[in-house]
Amino acid sequence: MAKNALYAQSGGVTAVINASACGVIETARRHPQQIARVYAGNNGIIGALTEDLIDTGQESDASIAALRHTPGSAFGSCRYKLRSFEENRREYERLVEVFQAHDIGYFFYNGGGDSQDTAHKVSQISEKMGYPITCIGIPKTVDNDLPFTDCSPGFGSVAKYVAVSIREGALDVASMCETSTKIFILEVMGRHAGWISAAGALARADGFPAPQVIVFPELPFEQEAFLEKVRRSVKQDGYCAIVVSEGAQRRDGTFLADAGGKDAFGHTQLGGVAPYLAQLIKRELGYKYHWALADYLQRSARHIASATDVEHAYAMGQAAVEFALAGKNAVMPTIVRQPGPAYAWTVGEAPLAEVANVEQRMPRDYISDCGFDVTDACLDYLRPLIQGEAYPPYENGIPVIARLHKTRVKKILNSHFSL
Amino acid sequence: MAKNALYAQSGGVTAVINASACGVIETARRHPQQIARVYAGNNGIIGALTEDLIDTGQESDASIAALRHTPGSAFGSCRYKLRSFEENRREYERLVEVFQAHDIGYFFYNGGGDSQDTAHKVSQISEKMGYPITCIGIPKTVDNDLPFTDCSPGFGSVAKYVAVSIREGALDVASMCETSTKIFILEVMGRHAGWISAAGALARADGFPAPQVIVFPELPFEQEAFLEKVRRSVKQDGYCAIVVSEGAQRRDGTFLADAGGKDAFGHTQLGGVAPYLAQLIKRELGYKYHWALADYLQRSARHIASATDVEHAYAMGQAAVEFALAGKNAVMPTIVRQPGPAYAWTVGEAPLAEVANVEQRMPRDYISDCGFDVTDACLDYLRPLIQGEAYPPYENGIPVIARLHKTRVKKILNSHFSL
Repeated sequence: MAKNALYAQSGGVTAVINASACGVIETARRHPQQIARVYAGNNGIIGALTEDLIDTGQESDASIAALRHTPGSAFGSCRYKLRSFEENRREYERLVEVFQAHDIGYFFYNGGGDSQDTAHKVSQISEKMGYPITCIGIPKTVDNDLPFTDCSPGFGSVAKYVAVSIREGALDVASMCETSTKIFILEVMGRHAGWISAAGALARADGFPAPQVIVFPELPFEQEAFLEKVRRSVKQDGYCAIVVSEGAQRRDGTFLADAGGKDAFGHTQLGGVAPYLAQLIKRELGYKYHWALADYLQRSARHIASATDVEHAYAMGQAAVEFALAGKNAVMPTIVRQPGPAYAWTVGEAPLAEVANVEQRMPRDYISDCGFDVTDACLDYLRPLIQGEAYPPYENGIPVIARLHKTRVKKILNSHFSL
Repeated sequence: MAKNALYAQSGGVTAVINASACGVIETARRHPQQIARVYAGNNGIIGALTEDLIDTGQESDASIAALRHTPGSAFGSCRYKLRSFEENRREYERLVEVFQAHDIGYFFYNGGGDSQDTAHKVSQISEKMGYPITCIGIPKTVDNDLPFTDCSPGFGSVAKYVAVSIREGALDVASMCETSTKIFILEVMGRHAGWISAAGALARADGFPAPQVIVFPELPFEQEAFLEKVRRSVKQDGYCAIVVSEGAQRRDGTFLADAGGKDAFGHTQLGGVAPYLAQLIKRELGYKYHWALADYLQRSARHIASATDVEHAYAMGQAAVEFALAGKNAVMPTIVRQPGPAYAWTVGEAPLAEVANVEQRMPRDYISDCGFDVTDACLDYLRPLIQGEAYPPYENGIPVIARLHKTRVKKILNSHFSL
């Protein structure tokens, strides 16, 4: 007897999380004997808890295919971490109620480390509550900090965005550096792991000198060494392009972005490690600066997505369904890099119990001795992940996005659940 | 007898200024009987004054062709405005010296309003100093504030960048707006003219609601009306995406970006109208926010350039040479929009004397009555300018750029000129 599946997106979105959704739904549609309908949680797990489900069966094949090139979270996302059984048994009972009411036999949860923890907890429902559910995690995070998988879908595209952007921004500052602005700083995401800022180094293809400085959150910020490297770059190249992680911090663990300044309303000014470094350079070295803060633009930049990343994302969604149909449970598909000079990868798997809440930061030997650059080993790791362009279709000069009906599944429980 | 040409880039760069350079050099190469060599000023007019000239004849056809897809200023740029003859005759005498020494009969100056003023002054050299020089301006500015021309090369690409970016960023904030961030603000360039922020409205293709609010520098910022529009957008769409011009100002003429805050070093904090508005919204409406500052990224984003803009830029460079060869002088080629439902344009011309120092701001009837949106007339004007994608070639996942030798022309004068 075919069961229904519940798919939910979780946490901060990426340029390619909907490509994973596309992989899930298209693969499920090829197996109607086993999976009757794919429901999507409206706003992720919250939709599951509140019985707010979207029937993806009401969407055309063309709309589902368009998910492959639509950034953001097509079904809505949230940050909501289930507590343990012991702490909040009520949430699990509710999930079982919803699963039962809608004949859900498969649960696919698409997210980062916290989300894989939630997926792991849901996978225990079978055992602890006697309701049979097949639970598969689908990796996703721009931060690239999930363990076991060679990389996380979402990261390759933000890496490509950062590499392309700092290359272009550096060409700009180089243009007038002899008589004007000498410093360009791009602030990127990465509270704890420096993978995104490291990707800036890929801009140096073809002998291009920028970015000359990268600031990682993994190492304490050494102000004198930083300033010296900036000064030398300006002397040598005429300018200095810098990529800095939002999570860059001092030796005492405080964020550089917590600059101690006050905003116009007298509140402590948070956010903005780029302006902090810009002002530091201006004060100590006297150089004129510009800075950019990419924020959401970097993780939603589907227009410059990595084709490799899109393929990874789709494949993880597809593999999740195939795993479930093959009887696997409580696992997450992974990307496994194959040895050899040409980049090749296969799909592997990792148990959710071990994935949950492990954060994979940059290895020390991926950061250069000076602390402000990456090593060749890091470049070799990163380079394949930004390969290929996967342009979305355009209409009237603007990327086409999936426009879903989001038809809701009729509520059966009709009981209110407060989060 | 063939003369040499001097080409110089001026002011802030764009994603397509090098496409104009490509148009100049490729066209000149087809007329060796009239134009012997094209020299480029290293760092613009400063290179002309200091006899620091790049011989573009030493670059291969392939390198010159690659200029078409290389952002930034390939030969270097500067902000240096010649004073009048009366104020600084010495500069003009020096230019004539350099022109004579290097047998320069054509001067092509590629820039915005200030630069056309300089071009106009150089064009007077023939008459005032008896040295025959053909001087043609080539329009360029992301600000789109040049008069006479329907649009300025460089603008279409930044317009496309802003429209695509706010569409993607809005999809991101929409993803979690029910439980988290509801506001996304993108700060764009435009100190005096709101053309760039207006382009954000093009993201609304296909019934997409964002951006819901646009803040222009042309109108005084009305705080209550702004907050009310934000509140209504959140109520209706669940979120509000905002595009704001860096030049947004209060009724008294002060910039919003001059927020009155202090940075970590105790200096008045300048720059950042986006964080100012974000904090205002947070304080008055309580919504969680994110903001991005595109800065250089928007004007150097060749990876998402408008194909129409690239064509315009190339055509302006080509037309400048053709004008010069046809015996025209002291003019700037322009883009002339043809009437009719389908977009069509031809090359026109404007006298430099009238172009110089005129700033074309947004007409009032391009801004909606409420002051926070554009009108249909504005959309009709803007839409053709972002049509078409003109992707650069990629190698190893990164855009290929022109790598020039920049062989210097041997100095003849050997006399130092201090700026």
